[in-house]
Amino acid sequence: MRQLMADARVDAAIFPQTDPHQSEYLASHWQVRRFLSGFTGSAGTLVLTANAALLWTDSRYFLQAADQLEGTGIILMKEGLPDTPSIEDYLLATLPADSRVGVDGMLFSVDAIRRLETALAAKGITVDVNFAPIDSIWTDRPALPAAPAIVHDVKYAGVSAADKIKAVTDAATAAGADAILISPLDEIAWTLNLRSRDVTYNPVMTAFLFLSPTAGNTLFTNPVKITPEVADHLAEANVKVAPYDTIASFLAALPSTLKVHISTAQTASTLSSILGDRALEGTSAVATLKGCKNDSQIEGIRAAMTRDGVALVGAFMEIERRAAEGHLSEIDVANILRDHRSRQPLFYDESFGTIAGWGPHGAIVHYEADENTNALIDGNNLLLIDSGAQYLDGTTDITRTIAVGTPTERQRRDFTLVMKGHIALATAIFPRGTHGLQLDALARQFLWKDGLTYLHGTGHGVGHFLNVHEGPQRISLLYVPAPLTPGMVTSNEPGIYRAGKWGIRCENLTLVVPIMSTEMGDFYGFETLTLFPFDRNLFDLSIMTDEEIIWVNEYHKKVRELLTPALESADARRWLEEKTAPLLRD
Amino acid sequence: MRQLMADARVDAAIFPQTDPHQSEYLASHWQVRRFLSGFTGSAGTLVLTANAALLWTDSRYFLQAADQLEGTGIILMKEGLPDTPSIEDYLLATLPADSRVGVDGMLFSVDAIRRLETALAAKGITVDVNFAPIDSIWTDRPALPAAPAIVHDVKYAGVSAADKIKAVTDAATAAGADAILISPLDEIAWTLNLRSRDVTYNPVMTAFLFLSPTAGNTLFTNPVKITPEVADHLAEANVKVAPYDTIASFLAALPSTLKVHISTAQTASTLSSILGDRALEGTSAVATLKGCKNDSQIEGIRAAMTRDGVALVGAFMEIERRAAEGHLSEIDVANILRDHRSRQPLFYDESFGTIAGWGPHGAIVHYEADENTNALIDGNNLLLIDSGAQYLDGTTDITRTIAVGTPTERQRRDFTLVMKGHIALATAIFPRGTHGLQLDALARQFLWKDGLTYLHGTGHGVGHFLNVHEGPQRISLLYVPAPLTPGMVTSNEPGIYRAGKWGIRCENLTLVVPIMSTEMGDFYGFETLTLFPFDRNLFDLSIMTDEEIIWVNEYHKKVRELLTPALESADARRWLEEKTAPLLRD
Repeated sequence: MRQLMADARVDAAIFPQTDPHQSEYLASHWQVRRFLSGFTGSAGTLVLTANAALLWTDSRYFLQAADQLEGTGIILMKEGLPDTPSIEDYLLATLPADSRVGVDGMLFSVDAIRRLETALAAKGITVDVNFAPIDSIWTDRPALPAAPAIVHDVKYAGVSAADKIKAVTDAATAAGADAILISPLDEIAWTLNLRSRDVTYNPVMTAFLFLSPTAGNTLFTNPVKITPEVADHLAEANVKVAPYDTIASFLAALPSTLKVHISTAQTASTLSSILGDRALEGTSAVATLKGCKNDSQIEGIRAAMTRDGVALVGAFMEIERRAAEGHLSEIDVANILRDHRSRQPLFYDESFGTIAGWGPHGAIVHYEADENTNALIDGNNLLLIDSGAQYLDGTTDITRTIAVGTPTERQRRDFTLVMKGHIALATAIFPRGTHGLQLDALARQFLWKDGLTYLHGTGHGVGHFLNVHEGPQRISLLYVPAPLTPGMVTSNEPGIYRAGKWGIRCENLTLVVPIMSTEMGDFYGFETLTLFPFDRNLFDLSIMTDEEIIWVNEYHKKVRELLTPALESADARRWLEEKTAPLLRD
Repeated sequence: MRQLMADARVDAAIFPQTDPHQSEYLASHWQVRRFLSGFTGSAGTLVLTANAALLWTDSRYFLQAADQLEGTGIILMKEGLPDTPSIEDYLLATLPADSRVGVDGMLFSVDAIRRLETALAAKGITVDVNFAPIDSIWTDRPALPAAPAIVHDVKYAGVSAADKIKAVTDAATAAGADAILISPLDEIAWTLNLRSRDVTYNPVMTAFLFLSPTAGNTLFTNPVKITPEVADHLAEANVKVAPYDTIASFLAALPSTLKVHISTAQTASTLSSILGDRALEGTSAVATLKGCKNDSQIEGIRAAMTRDGVALVGAFMEIERRAAEGHLSEIDVANILRDHRSRQPLFYDESFGTIAGWGPHGAIVHYEADENTNALIDGNNLLLIDSGAQYLDGTTDITRTIAVGTPTERQRRDFTLVMKGHIALATAIFPRGTHGLQLDALARQFLWKDGLTYLHGTGHGVGHFLNVHEGPQRISLLYVPAPLTPGMVTSNEPGIYRAGKWGIRCENLTLVVPIMSTEMGDFYGFETLTLFPFDRNLFDLSIMTDEEIIWVNEYHKKVRELLTPALESADARRWLEEKTAPLLRD
């Protein structure tokens, strides 16, 4: 790569962890940074200069990256630590004035390139956005994904692809555009009612989608993915198919007067440059259309939650039994969950890799057990289990923390502080227009009073049989002013992580619902969708209000009433009865 | 003015309500918009085109503006209503392409001009930033303020002007600048330990301040303000004085290599243009230095709060007595408060015009009684009183809502919901780095659950013997990511406004203080500074938690213990004893 850099006269090159669709998780074809560095984490950026190789990654991966980079000569740059410079600051400090930095403009959004160019301009450093020579050295690069696409039945989707295309193009037309280019894979899957298996856990297909009432609709994807059924489905929606790599020449050939709406946060810089003056910059209307689920989707999600709850009852019974017997590892927990879920109707896949963290492993926020770390669940401590599934009618994501053996006072207090925050958010009512940053502290307030906090977000949007992380809304410390709007599915997952001791997270999915309209406007709230009990042994009632205890008891009653009819075995019904018995003060 | 516009070939002109210092409140010299329109409100922008005259103002002034604009031909544009276009959108919709819009670049910040130019560029409309012909028609324009400046004693300020100049220039140097240009009047007053009476209620002097370790320090102001004492004080701090209107020529004559730090939100576009490449753009370090009060200032504020509390006891005793007798108007309330405060040592002025709103007038957020509206306080309703003072050792700002006669159940519930939010914010603990938007919902959460809300901010920064509204921090629905930092004084003032019925606001000033440091970082909280009881008759204990009742009782105990020794009359001590008696459940 350094030879290629010298040939192209670039003094530094940046290799991000993303694809031309700004995806969070990648098909193997796009794992350029992993290929070059050997580091396999899901977040991280490699920077090469003539003399140095450096990898920036976040706290989730400090240990793993240190391990995998050992002996490579690649320096680990720990993001988020006060002494770690940003990539831009590092380049400004180490490159001579008037240097050139090479990047592949297909892997950077319009916004990202602009930020990079602006930062580096301070020292006269320019960006070459056409530095993309990876194919010449990655000779065994995996091909583009070839798994067949499948049609997402309109009985689950609620709205046909043709109607969604109309809604999307109407929004683009209202913004003054003649067409819209959609790059994010989940937005394309949502718009066309298509799914595939191109990215682990994310049921998307690798594609670009161009929609225009005047210039026609074209899906750019690997043609081998288009089965006859999918071809019929696309024809019905009036969508043509073209090979994935013809997107650039297609855009270049568009009439010069055609205005094409692009989202600057999601569109590859290269494609925007090809469009030139034809690009009409904006934000994605699809994200909001997709984020607000319709009645069919909500009905599906409720049904999926019931099946997921049934699977969880079976799985947690087995987890409890085997933990008591001393024959349970973290990997076993993941296998048990997959096993029980996969037996449910409409199961398609897991929605992410199960996090099963025993004791100290629970304090590693994105822990995933492997053969080296796999712990035996034995003795007294907390077990944190974060897992979820893709069903044809909905996506689930749930975290429960359970006590194995006898919990300590401090563990019960920690758990209860997390639950008090969870309940405060679950019962919040807020005016129309409220966004997640405004509500985030409701979930943190009780932890803060104990000098505790957590650094991850409190809530993320969840797709419908789509990515388990989606926008536009989020509830977090970051300013993302997308209002919480009826139909949005969002997680509620405060936590607490004591390094070397234990981790606690309590996560349900919620639905934004209208609550009331008064002289002062419309007010919304959350309805909890997830159906599974919290561990009764971990509540410290002495620090709970009556209202909080009632909330837990009402929630457990709802769980019991909705799951019991779906449980086949008397053992399971009895188990659930015990687990959902009311909390009572002494 | 239309003739002047034609002469200058501008198709539209914008007259904002501000001065070259981006002040919120103005000396009469700068009341250009008031002179042209006749509208006297403190917020509003006049737009003139060849055919139309329009005035944009916010909901506080809809009634007053409609009244004052009647018969002028000026159209009232109600900001914040869904159908009201922004000024930019109005100009884009009504002006032909390639029009010219004239503004006085001294009255627009760098940021404001950039926003305007960017918005209007969509239609090829350009901005002439040198359209400032007001003097040719405003022949009796008031002169620049001429009141003498006074030295703010270092025993109150805590830090000498010389040391503050060093702190400010050190920050500018650290940002890579050789000098700093300070425009905001309160920042100049703070830096130099000078005060004056140039703006009603704001003890500032009209000036620009240029500081540079290499190019010297110069204060640009009306020389008549510089008394011998002030001259000595400035000489001691190594600050020269130059006439106010020589700032432009001074900046123009600076060496081309000298880098001058400016805040793009606060510096006039014209001055930035004069600096050209010498301008180093950034945000104000002075705002943060000024916002975090030192120990001397905090000691002074505590002393001022005690004197203000003593004055309030006397004033509220008189208000109660005269209301009971039926001889009290809203204007009387304001006069009584001024009278009692002005008898206190170190009193300098009020900190803003008292808001005394009886019944329906309390629902008008920025109500100020005049001869036409002045209501007699009679019968049963709520009286909202928002007032404050400037003392040499601190600034106060307090709102109390009291029941005259017997309050209704709904009034008590409204009041108690406001107080629950006030207490939730007052008792919040939060990690270092937390900003106001994150905490705002704590104060609103109980109102929201009743379908109620308020549209103003929950908290604003307060100066030390300076402006009652200051930055950088605020607690509001707006994203202002200035962290709440120990030493900052901020109001806590949730409210509820029922149009045509009553208004409630409960406001104390608070101090950000360190609470604890744990393995997860430093945690801060608020200490309440204001010393005066809330109306015990308005609490509905049935919707309060034990902790909330204890907070009120502890606060009232502190008020009693700190004010009683300072009260001269036995009547006053007895009155306070009654007003601070513990709330007890039945």
